[in-house]
Amino acid sequence: MSIKLLSSTKSFDGFVEKLEHDSTSTKTKMTFTLYKPSKKSVGALMWLSGLTCNEDNFITKAGAIRLASELGIILVCPDTSPRGTNFEGEHDNWDFGSGAGFYLDATRSPWDKNYSMYSYVAKELPSLVESYLNIPLKWSISGHSMGGHGALTLGMKHTDLFRSISAFAPICAPKKCPWGKKAFANYLGENDSSWNEYDASLLLKKSDSHLNILIDQGSKDNFLEKELMPKEIIEAAEGKDINFKLNLREGYDHSYYFISTFIEEHLRFHYEFLKA
Amino acid sequence: MSIKLLSSTKSFDGFVEKLEHDSTSTKTKMTFTLYKPSKKSVGALMWLSGLTCNEDNFITKAGAIRLASELGIILVCPDTSPRGTNFEGEHDNWDFGSGAGFYLDATRSPWDKNYSMYSYVAKELPSLVESYLNIPLKWSISGHSMGGHGALTLGMKHTDLFRSISAFAPICAPKKCPWGKKAFANYLGENDSSWNEYDASLLLKKSDSHLNILIDQGSKDNFLEKELMPKEIIEAAEGKDINFKLNLREGYDHSYYFISTFIEEHLRFHYEFLKA
Repeated sequence: MSIKLLSSTKSFDGFVEKLEHDSTSTKTKMTFTLYKPSKKSVGALMWLSGLTCNEDNFITKAGAIRLASELGIILVCPDTSPRGTNFEGEHDNWDFGSGAGFYLDATRSPWDKNYSMYSYVAKELPSLVESYLNIPLKWSISGHSMGGHGALTLGMKHTDLFRSISAFAPICAPKKCPWGKKAFANYLGENDSSWNEYDASLLLKKSDSHLNILIDQGSKDNFLEKELMPKEIIEAAEGKDINFKLNLREGYDHSYYFISTFIEEHLRFHYEFLKA
Repeated sequence: MSIKLLSSTKSFDGFVEKLEHDSTSTKTKMTFTLYKPSKKSVGALMWLSGLTCNEDNFITKAGAIRLASELGIILVCPDTSPRGTNFEGEHDNWDFGSGAGFYLDATRSPWDKNYSMYSYVAKELPSLVESYLNIPLKWSISGHSMGGHGALTLGMKHTDLFRSISAFAPICAPKKCPWGKKAFANYLGENDSSWNEYDASLLLKKSDSHLNILIDQGSKDNFLEKELMPKEIIEAAEGKDINFKLNLREGYDHSYYFISTFIEEHLRFHYEFLKA
């Protein structure tokens, strides 16, 4: 493991570190942001950002550091796709290609060469962070929009690793919405049976794990009906013996103004499972 | 008064509004950001941002909305200079021209046509906000770096308006530092006696008002010795019958990671004077 510290900045008595390493999953350099509280940590929260974002958005705009410092939660924020590969069309769309890795392992050329954000986030990065900090960690996972889709799907597929899952305005049924269809068709191919493994509502329907899931969704989110489809995951959760809560927040939109308002509740939610 | 609402976004039960109007001070369109808490407000805090910033930096990155909502403080965040004038050289330097209005009224051509950020912030904007909200307000003032210089100088010159002053890493003695000398020489001319009116340490030395001033300064701020010179204002405050506190914060730098760590203390400080 070779990891390069690009910057370290004090905040709420801990440190925000920007780190770079050669990823075995994406076969590119990847950067991520880490918040290390000064107190002994209870565990780490993996945060997955949304379309067009990178490893900075959450750490600079969510107001999460204050609580992470207080509760002793390490924050780990990866980028949203590989960078620097420059495939044809990679940078032409804000909802596909760079900044839009969709937390899956692409199987279609040329994306299958580098777009392996599923393996990167679910397998490589947790181990890397534990090696870097030289401690084993308990993990939870959260994210926003495309990152909410990532948190739900990775969290449900890795119940051994992630103790609790939360999401802000997640893409709940990517197989049915334009963002998901476009990404899955291009990354995975037209045979849509392979898409099922990356659809949170479908995964939840067939899951028999005891899951802890908290979702917040703004009622004035422009993407609510067409892209996010929370009804799909509510339906999938019905009748299941799981810890599932979805809050519809009146008047809130899709932005970090919404996330920052409710991030404290999410951090306190994860804290209960991390400290257990 | 004609004011245009560009956007309104719910956050912590209140609303972040982006507003645009024709300024009588700068003779340009000016935009500013307003946070309106849902509860009855105790007053307003004018926030002045630093070099290269605009009306967004503070509201998106400081984590201030949470406390402003809780305490009932309206936040008012102007831009850092006029925009769209396109004078020769206006956009060539990050520390002069656009994004660097220095909260003064320029007297040198061509800047004197539009660069009147002192009149804009100290006179026009408070009245405009009160008219827009249709209530008289109590005011305090704060800012960062160049905006800390603005908060200190405007606060000291308008003790009738601003009940308390605070600053993060302010330029304390602009007459002596490279940023200040460059800006003052270009905006005000080479005769440096006219500069005294915009130098916080010189203003404090000759002030006989009872002032309430809180300053936070990071010890690892790259600009500390050469540009910010907190020793100058500490010296000016010595022996004066004022409420003055400067905290040197070990290990913190010049960024919003530093500001967000201590913004709660500043908001609680201003709250005491606003509610009085």
